Amino acid sequence: MSNDKTAQAGHHGLTHFDQAGQAHMVDVGAKNETHRIAVATGVIRMEPETLEIIRSGSAKKGDVLGIARIAAIMASKKTSDLIPLCHPLALTRVTADFEIEEDLPGVRCTVQAETYGKTGVEMEALTAVQVGLLTIYDMCKAVDKGMVCDGVRLLEKHGGKSGPWCAELTSRCD
Amino acid sequence: MSNDKTAQAGHHGLTHFDQAGQAHMVDVGAKNETHRIAVATGVIRMEPETLEIIRSGSAKKGDVLGIARIAAIMASKKTSDLIPLCHPLALTRVTADFEIEEDLPGVRCTVQAETYGKTGVEMEALTAVQVGLLTIYDMCKAVDKGMVCDGVRLLEKHGGKSGPWCAELTSRCD
Amino acid sequence: MSNDKTAQAGHHGLTHFDQAGQAHMVDVGAKNETHRIAVATGVIRMEPETLEIIRSGSAKKGDVLGIARIAAIMASKKTSDLIPLCHPLALTRVTADFEIEEDLPGVRCTVQAETYGKTGVEMEALTAVQVGLLTIYDMCKAVDKGMVCDGVRLLEKHGGKSGPWCAELTSRCD
Amino acid sequence: MSNDKTAQAGHHGLTHFDQAGQAHMVDVGAKNETHRIAVATGVIRMEPETLEIIRSGSAKKGDVLGIARIAAIMASKKTSDLIPLCHPLALTRVTADFEIEEDLPGVRCTVQAETYGKTGVEMEALTAVQVGLLTIYDMCKAVDKGMVCDGVRLLEKHGGKSGPWCAELTSRCD
Amino acid sequence: MSNDKTAQAGHHGLTHFDQAGQAHMVDVGAKNETHRIAVATGVIRMEPETLEIIRSGSAKKGDVLGIARIAAIMASKKTSDLIPLCHPLALTRVTADFEIEEDLPGVRCTVQAETYGKTGVEMEALTAVQVGLLTIYDMCKAVDKGMVCDGVRLLEKHGGKSGPWCAELTSRCD
Amino acid sequence: MSNDKTAQAGHHGLTHFDQAGQAHMVDVGAKNETHRIAVATGVIRMEPETLEIIRSGSAKKGDVLGIARIAAIMASKKTSDLIPLCHPLALTRVTADFEIEEDLPGVRCTVQAETYGKTGVEMEALTAVQVGLLTIYDMCKAVDKGMVCDGVRLLEKHGGKSGPWCAELTSRCD
Repeated sequence: MSNDKTAQAGHHGLTHFDQAGQAHMVDVGAKNETHRIAVATGVIRMEPETLEIIRSGSAKKGDVLGIARIAAIMASKKTSDLIPLCHPLALTRVTADFEIEEDLPGVRCTVQAETYGKTGVEMEALTAVQVGLLTIYDMCKAVDKGMVCDGVRLLEKHGGKSGPWCAELTSRCD
Repeated sequence: MSNDKTAQAGHHGLTHFDQAGQAHMVDVGAKNETHRIAVATGVIRMEPETLEIIRSGSAKKGDVLGIARIAAIMASKKTSDLIPLCHPLALTRVTADFEIEEDLPGVRCTVQAETYGKTGVEMEALTAVQVGLLTIYDMCKAVDKGMVCDGVRLLEKHGGKSGPWCAELTSRCD
Repeated sequence: MSNDKTAQAGHHGLTHFDQAGQAHMVDVGAKNETHRIAVATGVIRMEPETLEIIRSGSAKKGDVLGIARIAAIMASKKTSDLIPLCHPLALTRVTADFEIEEDLPGVRCTVQAETYGKTGVEMEALTAVQVGLLTIYDMCKAVDKGMVCDGVRLLEKHGGKSGPWCAELTSRCD
Repeated sequence: MSNDKTAQAGHHGLTHFDQAGQAHMVDVGAKNETHRIAVATGVIRMEPETLEIIRSGSAKKGDVLGIARIAAIMASKKTSDLIPLCHPLALTRVTADFEIEEDLPGVRCTVQAETYGKTGVEMEALTAVQVGLLTIYDMCKAVDKGMVCDGVRLLEKHGGKSGPWCAELTSRCD
Repeated sequence: MSNDKTAQAGHHGLTHFDQAGQAHMVDVGAKNETHRIAVATGVIRMEPETLEIIRSGSAKKGDVLGIARIAAIMASKKTSDLIPLCHPLALTRVTADFEIEEDLPGVRCTVQAETYGKTGVEMEALTAVQVGLLTIYDMCKAVDKGMVCDGVRLLEKHGGKSGPWCAELTSRCD
Repeated sequence: MSNDKTAQAGHHGLTHFDQAGQAHMVDVGAKNETHRIAVATGVIRMEPETLEIIRSGSAKKGDVLGIARIAAIMASKKTSDLIPLCHPLALTRVTADFEIEEDLPGVRCTVQAETYGKTGVEMEALTAVQVGLLTIYDMCKAVDKGMVCDGVRLLEKHGGKSGPWCAELTSRCD
């Protein structure tokens, strides 16, 4: 079996390519099963009137954020279906929080995904954020087509050989 | 049959809710089948070194953008699976273009989706952009975990009763 | 092309089998595209305390029925994935209503599905009801494992060559 | 990481909500991997003539129950796709039995699902029963639209911290 | 809108690439909706003892070919999920026939798929054949791991601008 | 729990059937989690002109084989969705290699799949090969409808109780 081809990272450190530059689903078989956590975040900016409609709905009816939360959680489970070289994995926890940010104006979505396994869950957290924001877009586009998704990024990552990583804007890895 | 409940837009103009504030997949049965087009765009910002790796790979091996293009097109077909109240529809055309933008530095993804049907394809175009950008993230995250997706938005929309719509930053609807 | 084998209904009037008794996805190509509607219903019975928790949650937080509604609508879109010989079709409208029934005690889920096409949407409505009820089970099973889904059935059906059909317990076809 | 929010069961003992009443995929990371078994059951009632057609088909051609069995087993694998807050898991065994019950008249579907993991498989067994029954409906609806699914419930559950649970109508937990 | 880029077939007549050599889901919007039919076939070769087991099972129990038929039909509905640049479409008919061929020895699977639409259904027929054969492999691999799938090909194709096409080994287009 | 029914292989050694001849997803719960590897291969034969187009595209644009590679890898993750009685499992590595074979003329696809688990990955490797070849068909069918997939088979298999297995045409198990 030709394992040696992927023994080293391929093309310029991109592990998803072998030495010949061909894409593969990288071998994680020898990695340890550790508790892995990823937190991702992002916002959707909108007209102040749109945000007002979302806020009023959260209270009692027309619950945009409640539906976006379900969409985000369900999307995390489809990550390996969407991202070509992602490994399938069994998530053990997913939370999706939505906060209204007046100054954008808009909504922030922050997702924490966890597993006990051989690969990280960054893509699961990021996919959930993207789909959560898109669901807000879908539900509000009848009144505001110009909404923009911004700042979708990984916030922090724990577990695995490389240890914790945090975006410079947080201090949670200190 | 209780059609009247959805005869008018529901909660504050959000068509995805009925008068009682309950979510539904809105009735598009009476809409005309027209040629519908949507264009969406967005970028992923990264370290200049990461962009250099992507550019070098596009030439011959380690083709990050080629894989992201396939992921974007395939994701457009999964939109109604991901976005809870989206209608399923039969796309007739999808293109995904990736351009390197030196000044970000990063990559811009622009998707055009089309159908002949009763509903628009904005969500299909936006979903494709998001998954295209996420795929770039996935393939480059071994060397750059701090990449950020920004400015994911609808650029233009044609077809349907409401006529063309363009983001203010374009002049294609003039 | 061997069309004649399916020209008549197969095994004892079951259209999903040909004359030789072999399953097939039946030919609907020659059917008219008409407005098709199906309404299905069913209940989940539970302990009175469980129902009380659901009712209190609907008001403000822990929105079991809101989540079940989304699950039901999304499931309607997966029907042809689940039911082996079902034709894929493009739903034009889906609504899912949940009503608390004190005397069960429990919750009734009623789904109306619609399309303009060559085949009916009974299976889409029934699948949505089943998954809506199962989602209630999932969310409440920590406090009540003995819940039972009962009376899941088609209520009415409109469109297509065979004309309207209603369960005897309704008078909506009169 | 904000684990403490879910340290206790949320809204009135419903574990799928946190203390603020927001839905999440509950943290099962700390649970033991044990052998988990769930058995669910349910029936579909029909006209005696419909049951007669099914029985005659089972022998040689028009095998309704054989197809329903495959649909049930395949549906068990889609459970986490259908039920919003269900954890994905790797089933290690699924059996689906169909029995003709003359006195209904109708068919009973009983599914046993198993895994070695951190969460139970009740939803997998119930989903399989529901889709198995729906598949019978689909295949026989050309001759009998009034069929009703009844009594879909969990029969027993083994494994996990809470120990075995059985519906009162069985004595298998004694 | 940049339609002109795809106005002509791209790279050396391969329509799935534009003039710049980039993959896209080709524009079928202007095509006519016609009745489209495709027939594909293929075989799986095996030990004579394996074929004997399959034949004996078809009679009464252990129905390998009945299960493969269901798998083939269900796979045809997943084609656009599997083949990156395939258009999603609504199949109106799918049949899958399995014949025992003593002289191989083995089993032939032949699938006929149909739609009324803007694109052909060759890929749907071929995908169904492949998955039908693979399902036979799966069910018999405990006794025969050396089975080989051979001769999977399009037999004929009707509908669309280019008119009928038949493999040279058939005379059905004469 | 009625485990005994599956304690022995069912119908003539076919493990996917119980003693009564009914299909089930066989119990793998008691199997060891070992490192499991499967290698499958197959070819697509075509006109020499078609092969020439593919070869020229691989260099710089119109990258048929690059897209087929992604399709093959993604398909391996859908195996348990496609093959009715396949267990879902978490792949730890997938590689897909495509080689041009002048003498066919055509292309060979060889896939190696790996996992650490209770069941083998033969079906994952075979599914990936089939979909990889079908994707080549899809992308080239505008110029060559007569392409044929041949010789799709398992090459070797490692891990699990039964030990290594190799097709007689390889000597990798010696």
